[in-house]
Amino acid sequence: MRDPAEPANLFPRPPAPFPPEEYAARIERFRKALARRGIDGAIVSRHVSRLYLTGFDSSAGTLLISADQGALFAVDFRYIVMARRALPFARCVLMRPGGPDGALPFASKWRTAGYEGADSRAATDAIFARFSGVRKWEAVDSDLGALRSVKSALERGALRAAIRQGDRLFADAIQKISPGMSEWQIRNVFRSGADRLGHGESFETIVCAGKNGAECHHRPDATVLRPNMPLLVDFGVVLDNYHSDMTRCVSFGRPTPLYRKVYEIVLEANRAAIDGLRPGMTGAEVDAMARGVISRAGYGDAFGHSLGHSVGMEIHEGPNFSQSEKRVIKPGMVITVEPGIYLPGRLGVRIEDVVLVTRGGCEVLTRTPRELVSL
Amino acid sequence: MRDPAEPANLFPRPPAPFPPEEYAARIERFRKALARRGIDGAIVSRHVSRLYLTGFDSSAGTLLISADQGALFAVDFRYIVMARRALPFARCVLMRPGGPDGALPFASKWRTAGYEGADSRAATDAIFARFSGVRKWEAVDSDLGALRSVKSALERGALRAAIRQGDRLFADAIQKISPGMSEWQIRNVFRSGADRLGHGESFETIVCAGKNGAECHHRPDATVLRPNMPLLVDFGVVLDNYHSDMTRCVSFGRPTPLYRKVYEIVLEANRAAIDGLRPGMTGAEVDAMARGVISRAGYGDAFGHSLGHSVGMEIHEGPNFSQSEKRVIKPGMVITVEPGIYLPGRLGVRIEDVVLVTRGGCEVLTRTPRELVSL
Repeated sequence: MRDPAEPANLFPRPPAPFPPEEYAARIERFRKALARRGIDGAIVSRHVSRLYLTGFDSSAGTLLISADQGALFAVDFRYIVMARRALPFARCVLMRPGGPDGALPFASKWRTAGYEGADSRAATDAIFARFSGVRKWEAVDSDLGALRSVKSALERGALRAAIRQGDRLFADAIQKISPGMSEWQIRNVFRSGADRLGHGESFETIVCAGKNGAECHHRPDATVLRPNMPLLVDFGVVLDNYHSDMTRCVSFGRPTPLYRKVYEIVLEANRAAIDGLRPGMTGAEVDAMARGVISRAGYGDAFGHSLGHSVGMEIHEGPNFSQSEKRVIKPGMVITVEPGIYLPGRLGVRIEDVVLVTRGGCEVLTRTPRELVSL
Repeated sequence: MRDPAEPANLFPRPPAPFPPEEYAARIERFRKALARRGIDGAIVSRHVSRLYLTGFDSSAGTLLISADQGALFAVDFRYIVMARRALPFARCVLMRPGGPDGALPFASKWRTAGYEGADSRAATDAIFARFSGVRKWEAVDSDLGALRSVKSALERGALRAAIRQGDRLFADAIQKISPGMSEWQIRNVFRSGADRLGHGESFETIVCAGKNGAECHHRPDATVLRPNMPLLVDFGVVLDNYHSDMTRCVSFGRPTPLYRKVYEIVLEANRAAIDGLRPGMTGAEVDAMARGVISRAGYGDAFGHSLGHSVGMEIHEGPNFSQSEKRVIKPGMVITVEPGIYLPGRLGVRIEDVVLVTRGGCEVLTRTPRELVSL
């Protein structure tokens, strides 16, 4: 018999875009950024860039933003009906294979134009060939990245909501995990929970039992969690296209003295960065505060990745907290703080929170306690 | 209390790679393809290309394939321990940020080298700068694409298994769907089923109730399925990194005469391509067989997309069945056949199967019947 109850276990509604005014404002900010650089208009084709500027989620399409003329969205047959309904702030034209290029008249006066350098060579070569009136091409990835790095009020709300669901998922999952389960079964607890509390996992959940924690990006396998083993989980929930990201370690049974010592160092590194972070610092300066704690404790070589990455519509955005990050940290950025120590064959510890940079420092958005829990 | 039963509802094991011999054979074929073009070695960095050639699933890393010297995999701290364990057929070297580039000596004699043009401009510019001994760069995407387009025996087995799970999911889901459910709830039935029968959805399931079927890539929303409405679902299951893909339409209650007529035309188009397909044809010739049926029935303008795409480790691979596809169809290719007719504001019908091209024609791998079902 039919059982309409089962699907209700998943999140009850699709991802919701923001009101059209949010996208109109984003496009306006991007237009101003183009005008400041003397760029007549830009061609935006990456999925995430289109989604950021329009809220319209399609697998194809080209968005043209003119510095003085608004926006045009050219998309094929599969999406044109939906696009016209969803984008009151842009002209929508149908792209037909082999048909006339409806986007060209819009850009006929462009001489200096922007493109996405993160697109493939083949894709950008094809764009350059179509817009033959353009004399000079300039990559605009960093302009778009700068816009996206400072989150709007609506984006901060969306990130808070996603992170709250991450906290809930952890609290819920920890009740369901016990020795005897494999990493894969534990992964399943997080994956199904991310579908129940949001729109799925932010990325493939990392689950490390015991010494597998030393492999920072270990993939969950048949390894069984035993009593007296530590467990590391790194996971996130997507909600309305915004991502949460959290790493916690718990100990089933009594942790070894080495484990406790390493945990305390990583926790101190996490706190040092969170307490010391100030807008105006570079990402490298923030990284150094945490890295210094770990290096002074003698584990510098065991912290082989960077301290953190921005998070938003993508799980990995810029700027980063890393040794090479020269970009300046600004209020409104949302960035992970995730120091770790990895001792191959022995153990691995990472503690990851997401922080919102404020005028005076930062607000920790992740609410799950960071202290080592023994279950 | 802890409930270890719940997670068991998801697929019971992680994706399994093939035995190392499969990857050694793929690398060998790629080396021969490079040698034939006079390329000394190639730099492979896209995730799917690395996964195809090594079976190792990492978010970063660079694979160097030498035409006369085997393979080297350079990867950062996060993955090096796992890589050394998983890749007996390649030398693995640690990439340190700012450290010496361990990959360079391997390529010191390369003068003509291959790169992936589908990588971003920025990424390929960085590669070109690192390998300063190279005099000439050649894109190798089409060589890799040609290898990937003809599926090995193991790949055909993996695709059959994924497609079988898709059939099972459809049969199961159809029992759970009834009028009164929203498109989003129906999507949840497919999404949770794809996690139970495999490693998740091949792509975001498309669910169209009634006239939403006219939006080929409609996203499931709050639209409620009513009695006497047709339903279109386009979905797939990933199993062990291989994708299934299927579209079926069912009618809840009696379909209108127009709907039945359109359905029969689309079904005839589907059959025409499947019956007429022969290796040696171009993709355009196969597309034309289905398109001819629809055009002769007077609906040519209502079939605005191509007939099909190859499927494998990615949901969309080449070659396609499309009006512009000049590549020749070969035995061992696995391609969708998915004609459709879309009448905005009224209805949409698409019928999609996956076929394996054989020496004499093709084998339809999808086993779900294609005839219109009324529930």
